[in-house]
Amino acid sequence: MNHNAEIARTLIEALPYIQKYRGKVIVIKYGGNAMINQELFDAVMDDVQLLQLVGIRVVLVHGGGPEINDMLTRLGKEARFINGLRYTDQETMDVVQSVLCGKVNKNLVATIQRRGGRAVGLCGLDGALFQAIKLDRGDGCDYGLVGEIVAVDPDVVKRAIGNDRIPVVATVAQGVDDDTAYNVNADTAAAMLASALGAEKLILLTDTKGVFMDQNDESTLIKVIHPEEIPGLIESGVISGGMIPKIECCAAAIAGGVHGVNILDGRIPHSILLELLTNEGAGTMIREETK
Amino acid sequence: MNHNAEIARTLIEALPYIQKYRGKVIVIKYGGNAMINQELFDAVMDDVQLLQLVGIRVVLVHGGGPEINDMLTRLGKEARFINGLRYTDQETMDVVQSVLCGKVNKNLVATIQRRGGRAVGLCGLDGALFQAIKLDRGDGCDYGLVGEIVAVDPDVVKRAIGNDRIPVVATVAQGVDDDTAYNVNADTAAAMLASALGAEKLILLTDTKGVFMDQNDESTLIKVIHPEEIPGLIESGVISGGMIPKIECCAAAIAGGVHGVNILDGRIPHSILLELLTNEGAGTMIREETK
Amino acid sequence: MNHNAEIARTLIEALPYIQKYRGKVIVIKYGGNAMINQELFDAVMDDVQLLQLVGIRVVLVHGGGPEINDMLTRLGKEARFINGLRYTDQETMDVVQSVLCGKVNKNLVATIQRRGGRAVGLCGLDGALFQAIKLDRGDGCDYGLVGEIVAVDPDVVKRAIGNDRIPVVATVAQGVDDDTAYNVNADTAAAMLASALGAEKLILLTDTKGVFMDQNDESTLIKVIHPEEIPGLIESGVISGGMIPKIECCAAAIAGGVHGVNILDGRIPHSILLELLTNEGAGTMIREETK
Amino acid sequence: MNHNAEIARTLIEALPYIQKYRGKVIVIKYGGNAMINQELFDAVMDDVQLLQLVGIRVVLVHGGGPEINDMLTRLGKEARFINGLRYTDQETMDVVQSVLCGKVNKNLVATIQRRGGRAVGLCGLDGALFQAIKLDRGDGCDYGLVGEIVAVDPDVVKRAIGNDRIPVVATVAQGVDDDTAYNVNADTAAAMLASALGAEKLILLTDTKGVFMDQNDESTLIKVIHPEEIPGLIESGVISGGMIPKIECCAAAIAGGVHGVNILDGRIPHSILLELLTNEGAGTMIREETK
Amino acid sequence: MNHNAEIARTLIEALPYIQKYRGKVIVIKYGGNAMINQELFDAVMDDVQLLQLVGIRVVLVHGGGPEINDMLTRLGKEARFINGLRYTDQETMDVVQSVLCGKVNKNLVATIQRRGGRAVGLCGLDGALFQAIKLDRGDGCDYGLVGEIVAVDPDVVKRAIGNDRIPVVATVAQGVDDDTAYNVNADTAAAMLASALGAEKLILLTDTKGVFMDQNDESTLIKVIHPEEIPGLIESGVISGGMIPKIECCAAAIAGGVHGVNILDGRIPHSILLELLTNEGAGTMIREETK
Amino acid sequence: MNHNAEIARTLIEALPYIQKYRGKVIVIKYGGNAMINQELFDAVMDDVQLLQLVGIRVVLVHGGGPEINDMLTRLGKEARFINGLRYTDQETMDVVQSVLCGKVNKNLVATIQRRGGRAVGLCGLDGALFQAIKLDRGDGCDYGLVGEIVAVDPDVVKRAIGNDRIPVVATVAQGVDDDTAYNVNADTAAAMLASALGAEKLILLTDTKGVFMDQNDESTLIKVIHPEEIPGLIESGVISGGMIPKIECCAAAIAGGVHGVNILDGRIPHSILLELLTNEGAGTMIREETK
Repeated sequence: MNHNAEIARTLIEALPYIQKYRGKVIVIKYGGNAMINQELFDAVMDDVQLLQLVGIRVVLVHGGGPEINDMLTRLGKEARFINGLRYTDQETMDVVQSVLCGKVNKNLVATIQRRGGRAVGLCGLDGALFQAIKLDRGDGCDYGLVGEIVAVDPDVVKRAIGNDRIPVVATVAQGVDDDTAYNVNADTAAAMLASALGAEKLILLTDTKGVFMDQNDESTLIKVIHPEEIPGLIESGVISGGMIPKIECCAAAIAGGVHGVNILDGRIPHSILLELLTNEGAGTMIREETK
Repeated sequence: MNHNAEIARTLIEALPYIQKYRGKVIVIKYGGNAMINQELFDAVMDDVQLLQLVGIRVVLVHGGGPEINDMLTRLGKEARFINGLRYTDQETMDVVQSVLCGKVNKNLVATIQRRGGRAVGLCGLDGALFQAIKLDRGDGCDYGLVGEIVAVDPDVVKRAIGNDRIPVVATVAQGVDDDTAYNVNADTAAAMLASALGAEKLILLTDTKGVFMDQNDESTLIKVIHPEEIPGLIESGVISGGMIPKIECCAAAIAGGVHGVNILDGRIPHSILLELLTNEGAGTMIREETK
Repeated sequence: MNHNAEIARTLIEALPYIQKYRGKVIVIKYGGNAMINQELFDAVMDDVQLLQLVGIRVVLVHGGGPEINDMLTRLGKEARFINGLRYTDQETMDVVQSVLCGKVNKNLVATIQRRGGRAVGLCGLDGALFQAIKLDRGDGCDYGLVGEIVAVDPDVVKRAIGNDRIPVVATVAQGVDDDTAYNVNADTAAAMLASALGAEKLILLTDTKGVFMDQNDESTLIKVIHPEEIPGLIESGVISGGMIPKIECCAAAIAGGVHGVNILDGRIPHSILLELLTNEGAGTMIREETK
Repeated sequence: MNHNAEIARTLIEALPYIQKYRGKVIVIKYGGNAMINQELFDAVMDDVQLLQLVGIRVVLVHGGGPEINDMLTRLGKEARFINGLRYTDQETMDVVQSVLCGKVNKNLVATIQRRGGRAVGLCGLDGALFQAIKLDRGDGCDYGLVGEIVAVDPDVVKRAIGNDRIPVVATVAQGVDDDTAYNVNADTAAAMLASALGAEKLILLTDTKGVFMDQNDESTLIKVIHPEEIPGLIESGVISGGMIPKIECCAAAIAGGVHGVNILDGRIPHSILLELLTNEGAGTMIREETK
Repeated sequence: MNHNAEIARTLIEALPYIQKYRGKVIVIKYGGNAMINQELFDAVMDDVQLLQLVGIRVVLVHGGGPEINDMLTRLGKEARFINGLRYTDQETMDVVQSVLCGKVNKNLVATIQRRGGRAVGLCGLDGALFQAIKLDRGDGCDYGLVGEIVAVDPDVVKRAIGNDRIPVVATVAQGVDDDTAYNVNADTAAAMLASALGAEKLILLTDTKGVFMDQNDESTLIKVIHPEEIPGLIESGVISGGMIPKIECCAAAIAGGVHGVNILDGRIPHSILLELLTNEGAGTMIREETK
Repeated sequence: MNHNAEIARTLIEALPYIQKYRGKVIVIKYGGNAMINQELFDAVMDDVQLLQLVGIRVVLVHGGGPEINDMLTRLGKEARFINGLRYTDQETMDVVQSVLCGKVNKNLVATIQRRGGRAVGLCGLDGALFQAIKLDRGDGCDYGLVGEIVAVDPDVVKRAIGNDRIPVVATVAQGVDDDTAYNVNADTAAAMLASALGAEKLILLTDTKGVFMDQNDESTLIKVIHPEEIPGLIESGVISGGMIPKIECCAAAIAGGVHGVNILDGRIPHSILLELLTNEGAGTMIREETK
């Protein structure tokens, strides 16, 4: 088969997938290696833009990557961790907000615009998008300005979508119990936003290949997990460590009405595109059992 | 480079082309081999549907192919030609209208619908889309019910586009000088419709590879013709025979505001897709000289 | 009373009827003599256009009349009947579709347009308006491509109505169990369309004066039949033969939410107009008993 | 021809007229005998409602008829005329406004509503519809609160039309040179409103049959007058007395863009209907010469 | 504190009140001294206009004040009272309608327009806003054309609101049991209109300071009355005389969905403004007990 | 006069000013003391919110205040000035963008939201709002990433306005000659945005009382400057130093269609409110001479 024919075949094979997702909202939680490595970064930008162009309504939720740590180091702020969570004092919060909402967020917006896309940068303070209270894990510990989202007002994001723009969302939240901003978990924020938007799909770009029955054997990838299987998988140790909160927020998104959540390997270029527009999907998907 | 990477690259390479044509109207005149050969037919249906899905507004104008002749033969009607034009009596006209608007047109619609697309079948009688008078070439000959389009009311087509459907248009016209339908040239109808719609592009699917300086040497394909070059090309014999009226209606479309007309080889599968979404364009393009 | 006064009185007497039906959808199933006789044809065209102009939303559903038979005869196809239903092979189906959707349908459209009305011609293939499966009467007989409508998607018709056009609808259906078109009963198609549109009224133009207690005594016309009376009338033989399926599809329309169905005599000029805009209604009406 | 056929014919004959005026604005200046005589009143109400129902946008402008005089008489106010114009003091103006805007206007509205129509009663004070200054004829006379309209803001009337209501308009104007209401000429108000609305037609219901070359010979009715003929007709005495200002405001309406003005005999029942919906038009029409 | 600072503080203090009522409908029943005294009249006009400008949707319902009596006196009509209600014969009704709908109503409209506001004058006859039947108190008495409102069609008022105009509403009703207008109680009309509009608040401007536990001791003003307390207050004589029907129509408004009804002293300039935009509210408020 | 009366009078006196500016866009350039001092900050927030509530469409453009310098100091970056402009290297630009778009901007948004307002935070990168190239003063100096705005795409701001939100705009621009963000002058950005929005007014909050004929004599305040007077005032030294570029961007705004520019003293609480809603305006206004 000659080159042109292959090009045409590839495009045509995307057709049923475009039909499936057209007009639907896809929330992509973007972070990790895909944010640092330039080639991966370019690939994500390409993917996001192509999806938008074929009529899929992309919402890009991002964390701060290493840029927050860089700035804290430069300011001589020492990291202090409590039970694995970074204690966030006011000074740290100011840096988180500045870097996340001012630098990372607006740079993503600028990049999409430069490539001919249309984007707008938002955070949880805009239109009180993410509303949070001080985190209380019931363990008697004070984590400072780490917050827990208690409400989502998706109007500013919906308006951007309706205006055919890609909303790029930084995960800082507005305090409703105090006049402060809170630092919130980006996976959770993405999951709650996906629910509030009635999204078709939530994609978590991670630095893993998915969930494995045996971490040392790639052939044991679990392709689909139904929410009711999660407790058993945790108990048996298949899901452990940092994957536990990630899977739990996947389950919350499904409970909130999102049709499927994909844990994708952000280290593979174009993994988003391949998942959505080809039959070459990868990683682990969490969804309700099909009856 | 592995398979997935190639797929992704192909999709991403389509991105600037989708950006270029998104939201624009493309009128495709469909006929010849691409209508008869099943593989080519399938490829055109694929192309049309993909273009529609990525936000390009496709209008499919078609002639009757060999089905009209089949029916006339079965009815024992003998063809009678005058100066190369088929003389169309009332009985022939009835067959043309029945087959074109009832069989070919609605079958195209049904095919698109079955593949998940959205289509509606129209002809020049619907909403008086194409309005014609009896053809008078000034040669004293009577060609019967062969008509010449004198006005286009594109409202029914615009409504279908606005309703996100693919209008499939049969080229029978409403007589305004008499209570009859007229048989009209499909290329001309497509060109006039493209002008009336303010289309970005008109594509004529033909059974040739384009216009050549030397018909016997494929390497002499003329890639771009500016309207003002046409008289010279006709005079010198480069454009001759059936290509003359085709080129003239291309020039009329350009004069009517269409940005470019492509004469594409309908015998190559997916030539429409390749022309619009890749840098592998082929055939001859007629457009204004870029200043 | 002088002439002018009479004219004025007639117009004024139509006032309450216009008030009653204005903005409502009326589906008219058109066929039989009213389709063949030129005077009757003209009268129906007049009626449809006047109703449209005074703000009543007319949908014209038609069968094929004798034109299908003419063409089949000319092609030497012999009619083959099974249990009173014409066996429809592929060749016959092609003729049915061509003549119904291409000739009869578009000629009706052209006629309305020529008289200053606004019309668009549609069939069950457009937007998958009528979706059918192969008819299975449970009698072990194969009727070929005779179909049974299983779903109606009225979007294309609603759009035409919303665009202030008269939709003219040919009763060919899209197969959903096979890649074919099906020949379907026009009365049934009209009744199902009327239900899907939430029509106020369905009018069946027939070649009878209505239902009579005694077929030989015109004074025994039954003016109103309530759906629950139908089984008794069939059992007693008052409703018999071809009137049985007609009455049953009237009952189905009522069950589907249509407020009234009129069986009108299409042999009387302007019977539609007289029924709708004067107190000179005729024929038999099927409707729920008024409580 | 039997009765039903005649009814149908009458209705059908109205068809081209409805087509002509549908969606157009017709301003009717209503006064004189048609306001007093119950049969004529009923006929006007019928006509207005029928026109509205067939999609013609009627605006009803009225004067006060004899009810103002009745009230003034009952209050013992003596009429005082200056150069043929009633001197309007504040007390008289209060009565004019009360009776015109409160009684006559709202009674017309109530009548239309009771018959199933939709109406709203407005006057020149609502939304500053008619804005006037004190009349100054340059003759040194003080006519009291008689005003001259200097501006029209048709917004309240347009809104009523857009809301599918019949605006019933009383001809009292808002003073822009003083905090008062002014009594204004109803013909002039109707003509200026017709211009401001871009009306198709202005109809003046009068107690005459039109303009005659010879007042004593009904066969000399002038059916059409072109604006440029008016000065000559006045000079020659054909147009004289109270007809002069009437014709002048017809000419002003034409100059303001109204397509035709009809002077109709309000003493003939249904003269409006007959003029608009039949070929039995009567009276004199003022319009531009057709080129 | 200097003057400017005070001005700013006053404006800023209005902020939360504007936030509270913005976009909400407030029906103001206007009558009594506030209608007669020029200073009070000007203050009400100011208040209404300011409320409208800050985005509160004001509806002004008015009675006739002393102008009806003046006219009746001038016409020599003697008042005849039955059980405290004025017997309204046809002649009186004509005067009521003329003065109320023609003079008082349109003068209010003109005043608002002159001050730069946008208003339209309506009564219960317009669009059949207030529909009434002859009052029958079951006491065997005939009160003539005194009516009791049985239905409200608020469409004309809603359209005016939607068009950013202040609807000024005269309380004359359309008879639905007879072809007449009826004289109806203005408080009741305002309450029923407020319910039909889903108003936030109904304000009754009166000539009292509110409801007092002890009429002779101003310090005993009851600031809030819950509907269920009303029967007890009537029984104990705290609410008596003309206040009884007033309070009952307040209760009806609350039952009809209005959030609060204020009985305000119209003798204090700007009492409406102070009630709505400051914390200086006065008078008695009827509302549901806050749970 | 008692207290309530004064409150009412103050509110009523604002009426004509609200009428004047309602629905109009007012761009406020916010900076200086009003940004640092808590009382002044609160007053500006109050003013902005009140204006928004009474229907004035406020756009808040801000610079960075001292927070950028704080962060640069903490990072040990030494300021380097060239011809009075801070040389902006990439590291400085990152800090400017982070602090301006992430901290200052979003804190303003959060404050407005907490007070019950509706706001969204934007910068010149969102939707390519401000597009700039590297500043070239023609003096051979390299100012680093200091940019000059060459185009404004106000769509994101217009959408926020249309959605009844207060757009809060940080003055960082998107490079169109390079893949960078640029640091741009906030006064210029505000002026160009005001022009692009067709604003009624631009208000520059400054730390001066306006322009004085004699800087040492407050009684010499120039209340109004017409654009054509500016060159003379500069030449004569009345306008000098930092006021020169400020006045020049005022003139540019006027040339761009803004009706008036006010240089207001941000050190006086509520100076915005007093300027817009009272007759106590202060400072210097630049506007076209009234003919």
